[in-house]
Amino acid sequence: MSFRDKLRLYVLTERKLAPEVEAVKAALDGGATAIQLRLKNVPTREVLEVAEKLRKLTQEYGALFFVNDHLDIALAVQADGIQLGPDDLPVSVAKKLAPSLIIGASVYSLEEALKAEAEGADYLGAGAVFPTDTKSEASVLGLEGLREIVASVKIPVVAIGGINHENVLEVLKTGVHGIAVVSAIMGAPDIKEATEKMKTLLNK
Amino acid sequence: MSFRDKLRLYVLTERKLAPEVEAVKAALDGGATAIQLRLKNVPTREVLEVAEKLRKLTQEYGALFFVNDHLDIALAVQADGIQLGPDDLPVSVAKKLAPSLIIGASVYSLEEALKAEAEGADYLGAGAVFPTDTKSEASVLGLEGLREIVASVKIPVVAIGGINHENVLEVLKTGVHGIAVVSAIMGAPDIKEATEKMKTLLNK
Ligand code: NI
Repeated sequence: MSFRDKLRLYVLTERKLAPEVEAVKAALDGGATAIQLRLKNVPTREVLEVAEKLRKLTQEYGALFFVNDHLDIALAVQADGIQLGPDDLPVSVAKKLAPSLIIGASVYSLEEALKAEAEGADYLGAGAVFPTDTKSEASVLGLEGLREIVASVKIPVVAIGGINHENVLEVLKTGVHGIAVVSAIMGAPDIKEATEKMKTLLNK
Repeated sequence: MSFRDKLRLYVLTERKLAPEVEAVKAALDGGATAIQLRLKNVPTREVLEVAEKLRKLTQEYGALFFVNDHLDIALAVQADGIQLGPDDLPVSVAKKLAPSLIIGASVYSLEEALKAEAEGADYLGAGAVFPTDTKSEASVLGLEGLREIVASVKIPVVAIGGINHENVLEVLKTGVHGIAVVSAIMGAPDIKEATEKMKTLLNK
């Protein structure tokens, strides 16, 4: 599987919903092809320790492993890449510091998408596709906004934000390379089963 | 001046007391030989922006520049080094990732000091020498504890924690290579003057 193919079912950790290591293990068992560790306001040492465990797990399953924001930790654990948002290191800086890492940029508009591609991002996390608890209405791209981004950039696009088993097929029709999921998997009573169900939908 | 000599008057930023850029400029005007940017719970992008400005300033003055915790930012702005505490990346990991950076380890006991030296730290920030608002009595090294560390390691030791104009001469008698100051400089009504006064005491 190529890097692009592995963006297909991209699962993000969410400590408020499930402890990272167990949850990621279950998601990998269910068929997740990429994992992102997202831990905010936690000491660096603790992020490193969790990242080491997730790197080991993802390697066993042949899945991609991304670290949110912390380029130093991504390098320390030999992650496949990092995910950078507007509050993180700029893509151009990260690219210079760590040319070997796959760099994902979180973008919330067509303008940001084009800028991230120009700066050298390897893929985009574009959202929010649907309203979520953490994103206000104002920052919702919608399916139309997502389709526009997919049509405008050459790098792969992973859709994020409010994607669940009910709406995933609609999202796929926009031409995205993959979908990123938080709540619909991390918040499920059975994470492995929720991932398997999503995987089945993605293979349709 | 060697790296060791430049550890002599080491000033740390403290946003609660003074805005970083103006305060560092004043401290450099007053004779600070090393600056550490310490910004917790602030987005990476913002830390990077402040770090870029402080790197430029310290370069103009020929002072050392350290970034607390964020190895990625230290590399991005070409800081002289990083300062790592028990919650940050381990010294050994940082050393492997960034062999060109000077690595300072924050230590709070003789045991931690010996461990940090063994892991490859280039200097120690040892404290707290005196009680401070942020450190409880329990973690106070005292002058005796500091003296013991200085006598037990080969790398330079910078004393930190509650050092001010009144007690600095006592601290110097322990044989430390330098003193690190937060409140006595960053909390002074005139930062430049407070630094100059400290510098005069250090030159006695
Ligand atoms: Ni960091």
